[in-house]
Amino acid sequence: MDVGDVPRLAGDCVGILAGGGPLPGQVARAVEALGRQVFIIGFQDFAEPRVIEPWPHRYVRLAAAGEILSCLRAEGCRDIVLIGPVRRPSFSDLRPDATGARIMARIGRALFSGDDGLLAAIVRVLAEEGFVVHGAHEFLSGSVGRSGVLGRIQPDAGALADIRHGQDVVEAIGRLDIGQGCVVQDGLVLAVEAVEGTDRMLLRAGECRQPGRPGGVLVKMLKPGQDRRADLPTIGPDTVRRAAGVGLRGIAFQAGATLLTDPGGCIAAADETGLFLIGVGAAGVPATIA
Amino acid sequence: MDVGDVPRLAGDCVGILAGGGPLPGQVARAVEALGRQVFIIGFQDFAEPRVIEPWPHRYVRLAAAGEILSCLRAEGCRDIVLIGPVRRPSFSDLRPDATGARIMARIGRALFSGDDGLLAAIVRVLAEEGFVVHGAHEFLSGSVGRSGVLGRIQPDAGALADIRHGQDVVEAIGRLDIGQGCVVQDGLVLAVEAVEGTDRMLLRAGECRQPGRPGGVLVKMLKPGQDRRADLPTIGPDTVRRAAGVGLRGIAFQAGATLLTDPGGCIAAADETGLFLIGVGAAGVPATIA
Repeated sequence: MDVGDVPRLAGDCVGILAGGGPLPGQVARAVEALGRQVFIIGFQDFAEPRVIEPWPHRYVRLAAAGEILSCLRAEGCRDIVLIGPVRRPSFSDLRPDATGARIMARIGRALFSGDDGLLAAIVRVLAEEGFVVHGAHEFLSGSVGRSGVLGRIQPDAGALADIRHGQDVVEAIGRLDIGQGCVVQDGLVLAVEAVEGTDRMLLRAGECRQPGRPGGVLVKMLKPGQDRRADLPTIGPDTVRRAAGVGLRGIAFQAGATLLTDPGGCIAAADETGLFLIGVGAAGVPATIA
Repeated sequence: MDVGDVPRLAGDCVGILAGGGPLPGQVARAVEALGRQVFIIGFQDFAEPRVIEPWPHRYVRLAAAGEILSCLRAEGCRDIVLIGPVRRPSFSDLRPDATGARIMARIGRALFSGDDGLLAAIVRVLAEEGFVVHGAHEFLSGSVGRSGVLGRIQPDAGALADIRHGQDVVEAIGRLDIGQGCVVQDGLVLAVEAVEGTDRMLLRAGECRQPGRPGGVLVKMLKPGQDRRADLPTIGPDTVRRAAGVGLRGIAFQAGATLLTDPGGCIAAADETGLFLIGVGAAGVPATIA
């Protein structure tokens, strides 16, 4: 569905499978605003109590798939949203319940390939179990990053060239299901994201920064063909401040496929730290910003 | 030229442009064994005194291109070998001499793109200045890693699958001039090498390792189209021990295009730490090792 449309819901209650961060709460508010009920399943060790506890909820281990499915059915939730980061589980700690073990066998190798393989497989299993899986962006259209520059700082021609190069890099690594981000400084790829995640990549990029040249650019994009119902790239004010802290000069994200946890806070942080923040469409990056 | 042939030398004296590590000394010995004289230009802050000081030598700053060229000419060196790692210089520290500034202008953007772009440009400039640039592998045929398993440990089918996946990854990132290596564990790309280098990537791969699964594999390959006269991947006993220390189970290198600084020491370290060490040819990786 397109951003901005109202999600077509199959039932009265929407089940939110919640990882970390503030977005599960934002999705819950948006669901209530549509006149629907909410039930939140918070993934233990990831979901934040102050975010989910205002709503009917229950904490469940990530691998307790049987408990998750029966809870969703008991609460009458046919519509499901997965939102908020979970770290890749360490498989020795998973301890799946009986249904979880059956589902793990069904997912098979996706469990051990890239995160996108794993999350896409979970979406597929939920659909096979009769649920309708929605993307969080369907409910949070106001938080989806649009095309163009946010805030006061404009990228110059050199920064736009770095963004184009970064897009090529992320497309190549995304095709191999490696990761969603990289940092480019004046044509040089400082760091490529794999399992370690964006925060650690940013730290490394800062340490590998070439002095005497303009700062690098963080480029975050979907993997080619990625299911938008799982693991959309997310940017918050913390991301902006962290990027500024390691000497970057801007962040480019994929327009229409990136969630800003706090759009106003992101823009304020960018303006304050002198970073540009730009949403780049599928049509690519212009050579200059008008 | 093919590995194993004797290099065709244009003059009496071979000039060695030396970075770090033991290989400049090994090239010097090999040149002397061919009955030729040696002059070593040690890059200041990179060349190791105990390695180069047994031979006629001089220390020169990396960016003092005028001094390097006039020294090579004064010593009558038409044949040149670049060997031993140098870190990407920080451009604010370069302080090129007059010729260096002229050459930097000629190299242009390659200075700011990947290391391979930089080194290939240096090889091109030396050739334009009338020198004959050789690859270190022409002199060190005994140190060039051959195809097949070295040492006692054999990779199993899962490890071979990881090697094939790693080759795809390194080819994709090499095509974008990002780096020469990655670590793959059971289908999951743990880490991709960019500017930070192999040692730091290995540390990160160890920290991102998935418990309860077989250890990862380090895969090092040339960038597609890379000039073999500059920056061949190099593996030493330290590399093997470091890989073992972060929980990897093996190392795959490109046969015919990788220098082993100490082949016997690498094999001994691999056997001792339980790592496999395999040279992979252009024909790819077999599904099983006979």
